[in-house]
Amino acid sequence: MTEASTEHTMKHHRRPYANYAARTFLWEVSADGKVATITLNRPERKNPLTFDSYAELRDLFRSLSYATDVKVVVVTGSGGNFCSGGDVHEIIGPLTKMSMPELLDFTRMTGDLVKAMRACPQPIVAAVDGVCAGAGAMIALASDMRLGTPAAKTAFLFTRVGLAGADMGACTLLPRMIGQGRASELLYTGRSMNAEEGSQWGFFNSLHDSGQLLAAAQTLAAQLAAGPTFAHGMTKKLLHQEWNMGVDEAIEAEAEAQAICMQTRDFHRAYEAFVAKQKPVFKGD
Amino acid sequence: MTEASTEHTMKHHRRPYANYAARTFLWEVSADGKVATITLNRPERKNPLTFDSYAELRDLFRSLSYATDVKVVVVTGSGGNFCSGGDVHEIIGPLTKMSMPELLDFTRMTGDLVKAMRACPQPIVAAVDGVCAGAGAMIALASDMRLGTPAAKTAFLFTRVGLAGADMGACTLLPRMIGQGRASELLYTGRSMNAEEGSQWGFFNSLHDSGQLLAAAQTLAAQLAAGPTFAHGMTKKLLHQEWNMGVDEAIEAEAEAQAICMQTRDFHRAYEAFVAKQKPVFKGD
Amino acid sequence: MTEASTEHTMKHHRRPYANYAARTFLWEVSADGKVATITLNRPERKNPLTFDSYAELRDLFRSLSYATDVKVVVVTGSGGNFCSGGDVHEIIGPLTKMSMPELLDFTRMTGDLVKAMRACPQPIVAAVDGVCAGAGAMIALASDMRLGTPAAKTAFLFTRVGLAGADMGACTLLPRMIGQGRASELLYTGRSMNAEEGSQWGFFNSLHDSGQLLAAAQTLAAQLAAGPTFAHGMTKKLLHQEWNMGVDEAIEAEAEAQAICMQTRDFHRAYEAFVAKQKPVFKGD
Repeated sequence: MTEASTEHTMKHHRRPYANYAARTFLWEVSADGKVATITLNRPERKNPLTFDSYAELRDLFRSLSYATDVKVVVVTGSGGNFCSGGDVHEIIGPLTKMSMPELLDFTRMTGDLVKAMRACPQPIVAAVDGVCAGAGAMIALASDMRLGTPAAKTAFLFTRVGLAGADMGACTLLPRMIGQGRASELLYTGRSMNAEEGSQWGFFNSLHDSGQLLAAAQTLAAQLAAGPTFAHGMTKKLLHQEWNMGVDEAIEAEAEAQAICMQTRDFHRAYEAFVAKQKPVFKGD
Repeated sequence: MTEASTEHTMKHHRRPYANYAARTFLWEVSADGKVATITLNRPERKNPLTFDSYAELRDLFRSLSYATDVKVVVVTGSGGNFCSGGDVHEIIGPLTKMSMPELLDFTRMTGDLVKAMRACPQPIVAAVDGVCAGAGAMIALASDMRLGTPAAKTAFLFTRVGLAGADMGACTLLPRMIGQGRASELLYTGRSMNAEEGSQWGFFNSLHDSGQLLAAAQTLAAQLAAGPTFAHGMTKKLLHQEWNMGVDEAIEAEAEAQAICMQTRDFHRAYEAFVAKQKPVFKGD
Repeated sequence: MTEASTEHTMKHHRRPYANYAARTFLWEVSADGKVATITLNRPERKNPLTFDSYAELRDLFRSLSYATDVKVVVVTGSGGNFCSGGDVHEIIGPLTKMSMPELLDFTRMTGDLVKAMRACPQPIVAAVDGVCAGAGAMIALASDMRLGTPAAKTAFLFTRVGLAGADMGACTLLPRMIGQGRASELLYTGRSMNAEEGSQWGFFNSLHDSGQLLAAAQTLAAQLAAGPTFAHGMTKKLLHQEWNMGVDEAIEAEAEAQAICMQTRDFHRAYEAFVAKQKPVFKGD
């Protein structure tokens, strides 16, 4: 394969997302194309997930790995709620009739959504109001940052439907977010964590009035999108990869990662701006 | 071996605990047989541990892996204190005269108590009042949840007797519970963590008046015992197994675990109850 | 090699630090020789790091592994600030001109400073006032405990100069200290964590008035130095080694470590003092 054809192949994968047409949720992109907002949009049912929406979200986050335009993603829900989780009629009912291979297909698909959210280079900001339950709580947890409202009620309620708290990575993600003891309580009891607890325990980065929530999330996202986005992707990758590394191995991984970032133009731009006493303008390369 | 004999063997191991007779602590079981309460009971010495009580607790938690009746365990102490740790006269004195193999036998026995507490499928709720020190603090830490009182004083005081803070898993369990910096301070200095700190830092799930503590712990335990206890055991196993897994591996482990739980009767009971607009009655199978 | 020569070799490495002459920072040792204080001392620039000071700090902490006198280290800065990180003119400028092997030499050197801080047996107490930024924030984070003032502003601001938040181990150390969600926010945005946040989130162990900060840090250090310092070194080693161990493996590692500590004279001294109703006098052997 020649160099030219490699480049062609790479470009082929780098899909523009400005006009991506979602079927099971809303997809809006900021004027500069850098911030995309996913809105779970079935407000009369508090935005439940269906087999189709799981699959489409998974595929979207997987393909965002190759996006050249979208730099940060906001996830939210419409009508004052984030997401009520897997729909009882459309998901739980059918699951009670499935064989083991079919069940595993389902649990792997939902897990793959979390894997895809952790694997794409875009930081993900969840904007959480009202009900945030089950798989919806996992989508919030799998995001990089979470903004909430005083009305946010987050419940890892799998146990309420007879299941384990172990779903989509909850037993590894939640303890690292809020501590092992608090996570254990939420996962065993399925009780709601209220917004104040979520804020004090480190689940939410900040709380906002309901009317300002989405704007706050998009402002944070725009701020990140105006930063060194190649470096942000490296930060995200290392937060993920170092999950079960020793300290020394993590330090070596960061030595390599940061040396790579030191050869980006954004690093040079920052230095030149500093010398010129200006604010740097990052471009993500 | 035929199927019938396998079943016989399994049943042989599944010991009923309703009438278990403890020698070194009190053992009480709720009327329905599902919640067992261990009470360290030597109040005049603040419930210290001895060689015998370590061994009996270890053996009990190990064998609870095969219990069919007890679903949740409460651990507490009598007389307004939880546990003062290893008895100075009965444990520390003899240790100063031991050879290395004998010392290692001891430290492995105490560590095996924690391993057994983490390996049994029953969630463990510690009810902590007054003194909670040394190995006693480790028993609280090795529990799944901890309820305290305003008078609870928790000290990982190994350093006070010339030892390392590394005892029975403290250096891995405590940082995940309250954060690495706070854990470091407690383990290096041996100072007491007061109840308010314990609550703010996530060591305690909640604080209660001394007179209501045990009832609160048993109410929580009964709530868990009325839940899908097979699934609780799966949650506990995965919280343990995922301790040093990567995120992706943890997600796959949970996909398998949850698919297994989706074939339990409790999951079907929950769906049927939902459809019938009733509260599900879980049976743990 | 005979036993005698081995002993000679070991002694050769055990360097006295009472009169260590630092070139790029101040080095002061307490009257009893046990507590050393490192003061980053270029107050007119808020104590930035240079290529030379990184290297000297790394070499110092590496060689402290063999020290027989210094038992605890305090790190602080002069003039009301801790450290402003890598100097823009002396470090960032040159980095923009380096080749990849040279960049990797640099990022490995800075990472080696953190490795050396985690590998030496002396607990390290950071005393943080004012600006604590970039590599300076990493020095604070790599310490075992952190004391701050209300004016402390801690910023992992790598992203502000176009780099990743992954620097010197930040992506593994910070999440374990303050939780994954809060760490993600600080590393992606580069924003300052104020002192109150630092205290509530577990980054700071305690806050002190600016005028009392160094005394408080040195008092804590002296308290640790008067304790069983061999055992403290074991605590530190296991806090490090257990970073990515499973619970069961960590418990076995602690069984061995504590059995070793039970054969120290300090453990016997503690028991004898207890029996004689006296306060133990530890000597670190």
